[in-house]
Amino acid sequence: MEPGSVPISSEEKMMRTQVGIVGAGPAGLMLAHLLHLQGIESVIIEARSRQYIEERVRAGVLEQGTVDILNRTGIGERMRKEGLLHHGIEIGFQEKRHRIDMTDLTGKAVVVYGQHEVVKDLVNARLGSGGKIVFNVEQVSIHRLNDEHPVIHFSENGTLEQLHCDYIAGCDGFHGICRQSIPEGALTVYDRIYPFAWLGILADAPPSQEELVYANHERGFALYSMRSPKVTRLYLQCDPAEDIANWSDDRIWSELLTRLIGVDGWQPNQGPILQKSVTPMRSFVVEPMQYGRLFLAGDSAHIVPPTGAKGMNLAIADVRVLAHGLAAYYKSGNSETLAAYSETCLRRVWKVQRFSWWMTSILHRFPDANSFDQRRQTAELDYVTSSEAGARSLAENYVGLPLNLANELAG
Amino acid sequence: MEPGSVPISSEEKMMRTQVGIVGAGPAGLMLAHLLHLQGIESVIIEARSRQYIEERVRAGVLEQGTVDILNRTGIGERMRKEGLLHHGIEIGFQEKRHRIDMTDLTGKAVVVYGQHEVVKDLVNARLGSGGKIVFNVEQVSIHRLNDEHPVIHFSENGTLEQLHCDYIAGCDGFHGICRQSIPEGALTVYDRIYPFAWLGILADAPPSQEELVYANHERGFALYSMRSPKVTRLYLQCDPAEDIANWSDDRIWSELLTRLIGVDGWQPNQGPILQKSVTPMRSFVVEPMQYGRLFLAGDSAHIVPPTGAKGMNLAIADVRVLAHGLAAYYKSGNSETLAAYSETCLRRVWKVQRFSWWMTSILHRFPDANSFDQRRQTAELDYVTSSEAGARSLAENYVGLPLNLANELAG
Repeated sequence: MEPGSVPISSEEKMMRTQVGIVGAGPAGLMLAHLLHLQGIESVIIEARSRQYIEERVRAGVLEQGTVDILNRTGIGERMRKEGLLHHGIEIGFQEKRHRIDMTDLTGKAVVVYGQHEVVKDLVNARLGSGGKIVFNVEQVSIHRLNDEHPVIHFSENGTLEQLHCDYIAGCDGFHGICRQSIPEGALTVYDRIYPFAWLGILADAPPSQEELVYANHERGFALYSMRSPKVTRLYLQCDPAEDIANWSDDRIWSELLTRLIGVDGWQPNQGPILQKSVTPMRSFVVEPMQYGRLFLAGDSAHIVPPTGAKGMNLAIADVRVLAHGLAAYYKSGNSETLAAYSETCLRRVWKVQRFSWWMTSILHRFPDANSFDQRRQTAELDYVTSSEAGARSLAENYVGLPLNLANELAG
Repeated sequence: MEPGSVPISSEEKMMRTQVGIVGAGPAGLMLAHLLHLQGIESVIIEARSRQYIEERVRAGVLEQGTVDILNRTGIGERMRKEGLLHHGIEIGFQEKRHRIDMTDLTGKAVVVYGQHEVVKDLVNARLGSGGKIVFNVEQVSIHRLNDEHPVIHFSENGTLEQLHCDYIAGCDGFHGICRQSIPEGALTVYDRIYPFAWLGILADAPPSQEELVYANHERGFALYSMRSPKVTRLYLQCDPAEDIANWSDDRIWSELLTRLIGVDGWQPNQGPILQKSVTPMRSFVVEPMQYGRLFLAGDSAHIVPPTGAKGMNLAIADVRVLAHGLAAYYKSGNSETLAAYSETCLRRVWKVQRFSWWMTSILHRFPDANSFDQRRQTAELDYVTSSEAGARSLAENYVGLPLNLANELAG
């Protein structure tokens, strides 16, 4: 039996912790890690297996602030070795590619390093320092959110358990139970569905150039990126109702080459397609990101279309704010910073939503765009790639807007 | 009888000039002025009276490039004396006003000086140096646009006249005959109608602060500006089908004060309303801006919504490009620069269209915006007013993107 757990009956046990965390994605794991560094105890429960979350391929671009917090809190070692440092991106339109030099424009950069690699590093760090992550839980529910001690119920190997906490962090993603446990009417939902999706592939082919290429082609958006020095990651704008069965490997490559090849003849290397999928795109925010003693962080509170590569970065930013507030509370008993969690997060969340929407809107073809909108879109790309201020505005958002947490832990 | 005019019959006369200009708005007058400085002869014909065009109230913000060309070509004297130099604008949302310091951000500024004042100065300059402007013409038509010598037909005091030219400049505005004389199929039209209009007033009240205030209020956009140290110019977003008869002076002031008053209690001074009108808003571009020996300039080729204050400035930019091309042709016989007129103008026209659309889109309330769009709009205003790069991008467009005409006349 784990320390801190108390038997209630032969079939039920009770645990107590300071912060109960639902979900072992980047948000939940990072939160537990940051709290640990502040001497705050937490328990993470996760519906999936350790192997599942460590292999689940998701986003792969870490903004500067995310890179910094990983490094500052001692979990950046493998990222520094295996991550790919990118100082710019390329934007293609009208058969030309234009480079946005992020480092020149902002002094910052991004690192291409898969979300599941971050998850691995965080799981290792947590388990290595005695942290508790309960995998494969079932029947998760949360209770008494307005009481001093909210409770998480779940079952593990058929045993019912109760986790009593001071606070609960809902880090269980868009489809998780935490947001759904908040009474109707307490949250306001803001959302937008896009009239397209991304058909994504992983290809066993070394990247043919170092930096990402975001291309606006008359046949639709395409993105050239990479997961590692051996694996290319590519995306195509497609219909949200697209049946992946209609996309043979040949058809995918042909479409990718059409949309990505510029006048200079550059093209991605081809190779066996390891994985393919269609991902719908939406923007989604709930306000506030708190209900009683439940705090929502990451995808449970907001979803961005992937064009700006912001999903994981927003999740990490949320839990930095949350850890900051919790640390202030446990140190001084003052919950003022914690009470401002939602407001502090949302101001930045909305700016990141705006950026993600904007990147999406300038790069995709919209079925309802008229010819004026089309020309205006091209003019926007022309402006952004020819004006220093325009390029810098894109770059500062891409590398990540400042978080501005006064006295955030140094790690 | 004017020099250069030749009687054809007792009831018809013929004139000959190098460049025939249809329309004595800012585009036509400025073109004639620039051509004169290069020793190129022109004749302007205008359907309205001199008094009418000199009193027609239109735009009133001159971007830096427009100010510079007026000064450089010797017609800036009254503007320097009576124009109001503005180094910034204010943007209001969520009951706060935020200043965009254009001069800090770009080193440039704008001057508030009515379009009809520019027209007066240009008419004076033209007539003062012997230029020919024929007012009150009727039955204007243009012919032989693909021949070496196109012809403008019109009647003046009942006499039919023919103006034979090398080139015709169509500076006769959106409703003018020049664009409409181009055969169907030769032009591509790009346009967008906005679901709102501006209700504008001139008030006999001294401005209560120096700089313009662009306000996004939940009841709709409002703009505080001024025409002179004694006259305030104010606008309200309204329905395009709005009947001005429904807007009493009291109702207008009440709505203006509601939308413009911020938390600091500032408000515009009130006074008798001298003029009120409802102006629909659209974006419109035709491509190309040339057909044979006819060149379209200003509103005859493109319309912007007034939010970015770009209409007159675009017209002036067009004729700078056109005068530059004509000067090159008459000097060297080489028509290469002239042939690039449309392409040179359009690249910048589309950027200005983008800016005007963007300023419109962030400041107005759109009837079809959902709650996500609404929040995103607020986030955009928050971003633009809190990021130096965001503010600079707005500012550089507001003071005017560079025209980049190599070796443009120094005046």
